[in-house]
Amino acid sequence: MSNILKELDEILEARKLQDPSESYVASLYDKGLEKILKKVAEESVETVMAAKDIEHNGDKDHLVYEVADLWFHTMVLLASQGLSSDDVTNELQRRFGLSGHEEKANRNK
Amino acid sequence: MSNILKELDEILEARKLQDPSESYVASLYDKGLEKILKKVAEESVETVMAAKDIEHNGDKDHLVYEVADLWFHTMVLLASQGLSSDDVTNELQRRFGLSGHEEKANRNK
Amino acid sequence: MSNILKELDEILEARKLQDPSESYVASLYDKGLEKILKKVAEESVETVMAAKDIEHNGDKDHLVYEVADLWFHTMVLLASQGLSSDDVTNELQRRFGLSGHEEKANRNK
Amino acid sequence: MSNILKELDEILEARKLQDPSESYVASLYDKGLEKILKKVAEESVETVMAAKDIEHNGDKDHLVYEVADLWFHTMVLLASQGLSSDDVTNELQRRFGLSGHEEKANRNK
Repeated sequence: MSNILKELDEILEARKLQDPSESYVASLYDKGLEKILKKVAEESVETVMAAKDIEHNGDKDHLVYEVADLWFHTMVLLASQGLSSDDVTNELQRRFGLSGHEEKANRNK
Repeated sequence: MSNILKELDEILEARKLQDPSESYVASLYDKGLEKILKKVAEESVETVMAAKDIEHNGDKDHLVYEVADLWFHTMVLLASQGLSSDDVTNELQRRFGLSGHEEKANRNK
Repeated sequence: MSNILKELDEILEARKLQDPSESYVASLYDKGLEKILKKVAEESVETVMAAKDIEHNGDKDHLVYEVADLWFHTMVLLASQGLSSDDVTNELQRRFGLSGHEEKANRNK
Repeated sequence: MSNILKELDEILEARKLQDPSESYVASLYDKGLEKILKKVAEESVETVMAAKDIEHNGDKDHLVYEVADLWFHTMVLLASQGLSSDDVTNELQRRFGLSGHEEKANRNK
């Protein structure tokens, strides 16, 4: 995974300079906070429905797709507030006492 | 951020071996899919409320806290289905044509 | 209030015979259960946001508007499953030991 | 259905005088708006899950149960803001051009 979320943060930041008519993300920024929050809520319920479907059709790819949509739209929300995925992963790191340096440590071996 | 989500994936995987009475995550696995989905939905609406509050009190830390809660519970959901954050970041990488190798590239410099 | 919900039940039932291109409700039936459920979820979060706004702007009309949207879409959901608002109010009556005959009783006075 | 929702409005109003330790509704009022909104969101997702289950087990009673829970908690929300189900049904009446006088009309026959 490494830097995928960081790269996406940068893309979302760059979208702030684009025309709303030319970029889905720019159009979300332009429509404002409530529109972005409705998308977060919509992707949340699509995640719930995709997970329920696994009980019956075993299709886990659909759940991955919807969680990716949910994370993506929460990252749009973060970017719209001047925040990024770093803020979230730092909070998770703090909360769970994670090192965040596993790879670096491995490299030192 | 690097490997924080991967470390958390491992913690969530290890919780599968713990007693529900001794671990919050183990108790979620034990209560089953619908309980986990209710938590995802609950954290989603707490994210919405925290974002709305920013309009009035400017408290962005609360939003970060709730998005961390939301991501955490979606990771519990993924783990409960034998999936991980890697599946989600791979989907985002595929979707946005991200390299995922920025750090490796930097190391080669 | 009396029979407003019953009248609305009848309208929703009649929409089943209409062309999806000519009626919003018929188009929801045509798009299927997941589309209807997404609308229920969307109206739910709009209700949450409207309620949060009352804390700051005191606009209670907006909350009423969104709850009406939420009830309306749950009634579309019920109708799509061959159910109606009667089923819901009967459940509430059963649960709270309500008479449901207040008006009739008053008329007998 | 007639006056069931009005009776429930009155019950919810009366709960404002009760001790939070003795009444579930009084405890919701006491915990405040965010707690009530979390319940609305929770019942919304339970409605979604119950509807999804109908596709597989045909259990429509569960959906009725969850919609009743959802309407009930929206009525607690309305009551907490000095509103009632009347405000919602009046909005639906206005929106759909409903007479609301069907029963009265029938009585005149």
